[in-house]
Amino acid sequence: MSTEFPPVVPPDETVLREAEARHAVLTKPVGSLGRLEELGNWIAACQGSVPPKPFVRPRVVVFAGDHGITAQGVSAFPSEVTGQMVANFMTGGAAVNVLAQVAGATVRVVDMAVDADTPAGVSQHKVRRSSGSIDREDALTREQCELAIAAGRALADEEVDAGADVLVAGDMGIGNTTPAAVLIASLTGSEPVAVVGRGTGIDDQAWMRKTAAIRDALRRARLVISDPVALLATASGADIAAMAGFLAQAAVRKTPVVLDGVVVGAAAVVAEEMAPGAREWWVAGHQSAEPAHAIALGHLNLKPLLEFEMRLGEGSGAVLALPLLISAVKVLAEMATFESAGVTNREDLTREEPAPEDPAE
Amino acid sequence: MSTEFPPVVPPDETVLREAEARHAVLTKPVGSLGRLEELGNWIAACQGSVPPKPFVRPRVVVFAGDHGITAQGVSAFPSEVTGQMVANFMTGGAAVNVLAQVAGATVRVVDMAVDADTPAGVSQHKVRRSSGSIDREDALTREQCELAIAAGRALADEEVDAGADVLVAGDMGIGNTTPAAVLIASLTGSEPVAVVGRGTGIDDQAWMRKTAAIRDALRRARLVISDPVALLATASGADIAAMAGFLAQAAVRKTPVVLDGVVVGAAAVVAEEMAPGAREWWVAGHQSAEPAHAIALGHLNLKPLLEFEMRLGEGSGAVLALPLLISAVKVLAEMATFESAGVTNREDLTREEPAPEDPAE
Repeated sequence: MSTEFPPVVPPDETVLREAEARHAVLTKPVGSLGRLEELGNWIAACQGSVPPKPFVRPRVVVFAGDHGITAQGVSAFPSEVTGQMVANFMTGGAAVNVLAQVAGATVRVVDMAVDADTPAGVSQHKVRRSSGSIDREDALTREQCELAIAAGRALADEEVDAGADVLVAGDMGIGNTTPAAVLIASLTGSEPVAVVGRGTGIDDQAWMRKTAAIRDALRRARLVISDPVALLATASGADIAAMAGFLAQAAVRKTPVVLDGVVVGAAAVVAEEMAPGAREWWVAGHQSAEPAHAIALGHLNLKPLLEFEMRLGEGSGAVLALPLLISAVKVLAEMATFESAGVTNREDLTREEPAPEDPAE
Repeated sequence: MSTEFPPVVPPDETVLREAEARHAVLTKPVGSLGRLEELGNWIAACQGSVPPKPFVRPRVVVFAGDHGITAQGVSAFPSEVTGQMVANFMTGGAAVNVLAQVAGATVRVVDMAVDADTPAGVSQHKVRRSSGSIDREDALTREQCELAIAAGRALADEEVDAGADVLVAGDMGIGNTTPAAVLIASLTGSEPVAVVGRGTGIDDQAWMRKTAAIRDALRRARLVISDPVALLATASGADIAAMAGFLAQAAVRKTPVVLDGVVVGAAAVVAEEMAPGAREWWVAGHQSAEPAHAIALGHLNLKPLLEFEMRLGEGSGAVLALPLLISAVKVLAEMATFESAGVTNREDLTREEPAPEDPAE
């Protein structure tokens, strides 16, 4: 089983310039839609098409898994919630299900390491139950880790082959912000207190236990930061390792991804190590309330679309941002041009620039 | 014609608490959806209903008007664009039209003071052509100003009576960021250099002319800041005066409004003077790139949902934010509860809180 990724080809720079040129002839001052223009240009470059095509199959894959570190009392919720939430995703009652409807996205949940039995439809990629307690032992064996990364790759391939044209990875797993904080701290050289957060809402006692767990796990993780697979085996979990494979493979498959919060952000930081340049295919849906997330996004040089102080995971923040991508595509594809609408453009601009071809219908 | 507004009744605080209580039993950690929860609670309080009802008729009204100050060379575009853009709105080619489709909103354009003839369907409230050059003369007579405010009120009534359950005001008018900057500076005690912006994209020469125009107009406006109608007559235009009436009346009619950029923000600052408490019915859709806008939002104590560096107007930033409101409503209305989904809640919370009634279906 290979954990080597082929080189990532960046989104098409020529198409990006074409998209910018199209924006310059739409009926608005140049640049006046700010980041919405940048977003549309990026999607065009990802698709290799100006104007970009409407998304046909936005797809969310939620990676579920439990974490042995919860035995150290780092979470406000018991591990049994992970399996219960898998059932909730399947019946459409979770936040990500509801938010996905607004964006026309569909949600799939994958049990990578839930510490309970789940239906066959979601457990075909399951690597194990839970993970090692990362403050004192490895999360996964190397083989389990490679299996999980391969599963994530296979899931990305499967979704892209089934027509997914924008992907979201989501997380579900009680305790998962602890390994996420460790992964981010290890690859960004951050201290435990800089990356520890309240997760699902822990009290001060649990916060101290979590900080100690991160400190101990970080000591182990720092020894293997030059080997991303070893790092994932040491300090992630099958859910996060699969997510890293998924995010890297999405880039290999030239499919844009909207990143979610701190757990997906941790997987992304490792995925960028495995497949350098993968980040060019990702946009940050939001910046979560977890302090490690801002560090991860800064490291990846990604600027969040939303800052809503969310800290739920599931892909919820990414899905909430999806309508912004849909809007960015629609503006670039459907707005009238100065010429088609008979609107006078700025004289200085029409003088300076060669008249671009009018690609409007 | 009265420019006196009845007292504004704030959104229902009891319903807000009920919405908070409902959020606490949905399958997610308390508060983990951050600002999305606050937004949903606010909409519930506006509607007086938990869960809130889906929006049936989101409605955008674009107020168009020209500005005499353009004679001083404060804009990058000629005034003829205002009338041309009115036609563009009517045929659906402008940014706000395209963005409105994503949110399921419809767009209406109203000619309040375009310096050209427009179709009868959009000009029934027209007060005059253009406005006085506010650096040296009043924008409007008192009577014109009262007519414009009354037109805005009538438009709000008309839209609410036709079923609009969330409103957006948009602006279209070459030169309109100059009066907007003056209004905001006058009511917030700001200096011209703090409120002057690039508008549609002016060069340094025009920036200097615009700053001088704002300085001169501000000198005149400061004399009348205690009388909002006089202030609008002195330094706005029929489009902005109508918008102020519209925003105030929306609050009187207990209908939530998503504010757009700096021109709407200027109208909002004056509307809050005319109908104190109206701001409780408004949410800031975005923060624009115009420097005066952040000052206006700070003055109104409103935090923007989006910061996309947009500076187009038309209601575009507000409409881009509408799916966030739709999402906030849907989450509060449709997510499963811990009880209905059979998910274990935090023990400390279930111990501390009296079990709320389960309002799920």
